Amino acid sequence: MPYALTTTVRRSFADTLAATRDSLAEQGFGVLTEIDMQATLKAKLDVEILPQVILGACRPPLAYAALQSEPSAGLLLPCNVVIRSLDEATTVVETLDPQVIVSVTQNDALSPVADEVSRRLTAVLDTVTNAFADR
Amino acid sequence: MPYALTTTVRRSFADTLAATRDSLAEQGFGVLTEIDMQATLKAKLDVEILPQVILGACRPPLAYAALQSEPSAGLLLPCNVVIRSLDEATTVVETLDPQVIVSVTQNDALSPVADEVSRRLTAVLDTVTNAFADR
Repeated sequence: MPYALTTTVRRSFADTLAATRDSLAEQGFGVLTEIDMQATLKAKLDVEILPQVILGACRPPLAYAALQSEPSAGLLLPCNVVIRSLDEATTVVETLDPQVIVSVTQNDALSPVADEVSRRLTAVLDTVTNAFADR
Repeated sequence: MPYALTTTVRRSFADTLAATRDSLAEQGFGVLTEIDMQATLKAKLDVEILPQVILGACRPPLAYAALQSEPSAGLLLPCNVVIRSLDEATTVVETLDPQVIVSVTQNDALSPVADEVSRRLTAVLDTVTNAFADR
């Protein structure tokens, strides 16, 4: 089963990261965590990778609902949104498919939560895609 | 398939959190992110849950190896370690079973990385368990 929702845009990493942040906020997601993988791996291992940031997105009512249904749901929170450069003009935005959470936990009570997260994350990716579509 | 590695100790939340941090450091994990779920849900929703912290643990050489094998591996990084209170004297420490990453991605090239993460996270949980065992 595919595990990511993804879009690829013809746009710089910085512009795409900014657009993704805006779109997450519009859909009611707070960004609780942020990891600059390029900077982290450079600092820790002195290796070079292309720009990549992992945002930990959380919509509190959905996180709370998940924890009520599945006490260990924190293991799968927040929802990661990865923005990563393919080249100077091409950037991927992807999120973990929330259905993976239902599949991994085998807890059908999480389905309504996963469905709403899916709907909102799909809207985030659509907004980013459309913002940079050729006109 | 179970998706968590877990231990339950007869110890306060604060002591268990401190012991888990120490043990992660001993096993070479940095803590890149930290979410206080109790404080976040109180602030955002004004609801009360028992103390719960999600630590995002990362061992950089393993994260780098994962990204080399699977470009979207950032969706499953860092490795969440949840410390959550069951009552004043009982605390759960659990981590996402790294084998879930192999299962979700269906990428066998990640198996050696997952095996090493599993070995180290199991050592973390064993250390926490033994630190608080009745003597």
